[in-house]
Amino acid sequence: MEIAYECWGQLSENRDNAVMLFTGLSPSAHAARSANDPSDGWWDYMIGAGKPIDTQRYFVICVNSLGSCFGSTGPASINAKTGKPYRLDFPELAVEDIANAGREAYKMLGIEKLNTVIGASLGGMSALALAILFPNEVHRLVSISAAPHALPFAISIRSLQREIIRNDPKWQKGDYNFDQPPTDGMRLARKLGLITYRSAEEFSQRFGRKRKFIEQPIEPAFSAEFDVETYLDYNANQFIDQFDTNCYLYLSRAIDWFDVAAHGGSIEAGLSKIRTQANLIIGVQSDFLFPLSQQQEIAGILESHGLKTTFAALDSLQGHDSFLIDQEKFAPVVRDFFSDYISPPATVIS
Amino acid sequence: MEIAYECWGQLSENRDNAVMLFTGLSPSAHAARSANDPSDGWWDYMIGAGKPIDTQRYFVICVNSLGSCFGSTGPASINAKTGKPYRLDFPELAVEDIANAGREAYKMLGIEKLNTVIGASLGGMSALALAILFPNEVHRLVSISAAPHALPFAISIRSLQREIIRNDPKWQKGDYNFDQPPTDGMRLARKLGLITYRSAEEFSQRFGRKRKFIEQPIEPAFSAEFDVETYLDYNANQFIDQFDTNCYLYLSRAIDWFDVAAHGGSIEAGLSKIRTQANLIIGVQSDFLFPLSQQQEIAGILESHGLKTTFAALDSLQGHDSFLIDQEKFAPVVRDFFSDYISPPATVIS
Repeated sequence: MEIAYECWGQLSENRDNAVMLFTGLSPSAHAARSANDPSDGWWDYMIGAGKPIDTQRYFVICVNSLGSCFGSTGPASINAKTGKPYRLDFPELAVEDIANAGREAYKMLGIEKLNTVIGASLGGMSALALAILFPNEVHRLVSISAAPHALPFAISIRSLQREIIRNDPKWQKGDYNFDQPPTDGMRLARKLGLITYRSAEEFSQRFGRKRKFIEQPIEPAFSAEFDVETYLDYNANQFIDQFDTNCYLYLSRAIDWFDVAAHGGSIEAGLSKIRTQANLIIGVQSDFLFPLSQQQEIAGILESHGLKTTFAALDSLQGHDSFLIDQEKFAPVVRDFFSDYISPPATVIS
Repeated sequence: MEIAYECWGQLSENRDNAVMLFTGLSPSAHAARSANDPSDGWWDYMIGAGKPIDTQRYFVICVNSLGSCFGSTGPASINAKTGKPYRLDFPELAVEDIANAGREAYKMLGIEKLNTVIGASLGGMSALALAILFPNEVHRLVSISAAPHALPFAISIRSLQREIIRNDPKWQKGDYNFDQPPTDGMRLARKLGLITYRSAEEFSQRFGRKRKFIEQPIEPAFSAEFDVETYLDYNANQFIDQFDTNCYLYLSRAIDWFDVAAHGGSIEAGLSKIRTQANLIIGVQSDFLFPLSQQQEIAGILESHGLKTTFAALDSLQGHDSFLIDQEKFAPVVRDFFSDYISPPATVIS
């Protein structure tokens, strides 16, 4: 397999400052700007010189998840055996596979132990999986808006997204023409994502009941009138040109399948394998997809196992997406965590 | 227009015991069993002799909403001018139209004033509309899990449901073959309904992560594994044979359009038109489609206008659907309300 990654900062001589970042379902490895790629990263406020994850001290590696479509091997990649894309012949994908693939990346970079593994959403699940599977290679864990396993409400949302996509006649059981992918299904599934990634309160504050001024019956019938509908249209259409449909299906199902309890019979037993020196568990009150109670559960169990654990319950407004947006609440908590532990700073990068 | 209705109990001689019941989006007028139709009604626990709305005292009328497809005129009805179904030529439908149609029904029955208007969800909006439009004809109001207007989160859910349906190639811009309706779109839209009508906590308690035992890769790929997915399959498939698609679209949009603030410039001004003797406003903590805060808003304003108002915040688990299910919490509150006001009982029915 190939694993696409980006990195920032410089690996210290004793190789003890590596931070591996796993992503949510849809981002690429381009978490932050760099000299090689000065375009916006998806977590620019968090990673960089002087930022909460300070690249003057830490060597940050972000991997594109195994199964995704931004450089790492996934269902859209060419199967060397057939010379054609894997599509649904791609092996069943689990969060543990994503964790293992990330491990291959840091091993290849000559890193034996991570200073910290960090991730949000699916990335937080991947971080948990890595810490459970390779406890001796993970010194610290940061899990943001993740879960020890998905609850049935979140499963039902993702299951519906997958069914909406499968129902698009263009999906063709995965054998769609790459020039004519099932964009209708992807657009509708993405809209459901956008609705569930934020919060009702944020929608109320942003959009209220604002709407177009309409003199004539709207065309086509039943199409967007309210600002919230226009927002969903715009953002869903942005997404569908970027993301491969089969990759989306594989990654979405991996989230539903993941279960810490599979590593020992219970969540408690699974988390008991973790041997970190310190943990930071962050959740958001307005997140109804990965609810705060699940972060509390993780933190409580880690603490009960005698691990030094900080639990941060943030009152951000943006629901599950808060870590991408609410810099004001997230930056200080992450900064505090990373300001500890390693001093003096590693070699300053240029 | 034709308005289908059912009634229970007997109208008192001075015609002061009539209770008009408006329904949510999908039910028929068959709210309770009767001699004419002994099949299960959708609110059997609430309506009948000795039940919370006691038909030994009250004359209960339930109307099938204008725009629906269970006997009342709607988009699936034949347009006398063309001899064909209205489909999208049906006039734009507002909640106020549903309220007006209900009024025509009770007028036709010789009733000048309602003892009580009652409704849940869309039915609660219809009840509010009637009380605002005809304050002298409504003595008492019971609004359950309704809203003075939809907030953008709920609008986004319903908008997505409508788009999923419109996106079904069989919808044909409303001109579908009635023998081959857009069942895929309806099934998916209904699943989104089922997810949002309940609560995450109820799903957790009912389904947890229970799933089929799977030896082989599941076929078709990505189809139901978890019990919550099987539940959605079963219940959505039950619905799609019953409900006309265009009717669904019209009623769904009517909910989004409804705005008490359209009756005077603000919710406060709209509700100030109500002249009831007593009100009962019920909401449920786990309802995220018509959140409790909106019931509180209605109750607070009515009370501030000097109207006798009971506000009941129930901690039912079943979200927006609680009024259909949680007999234990709902029955006493409704019984208390209806036990007041009229005595002695009207003529006892056989």
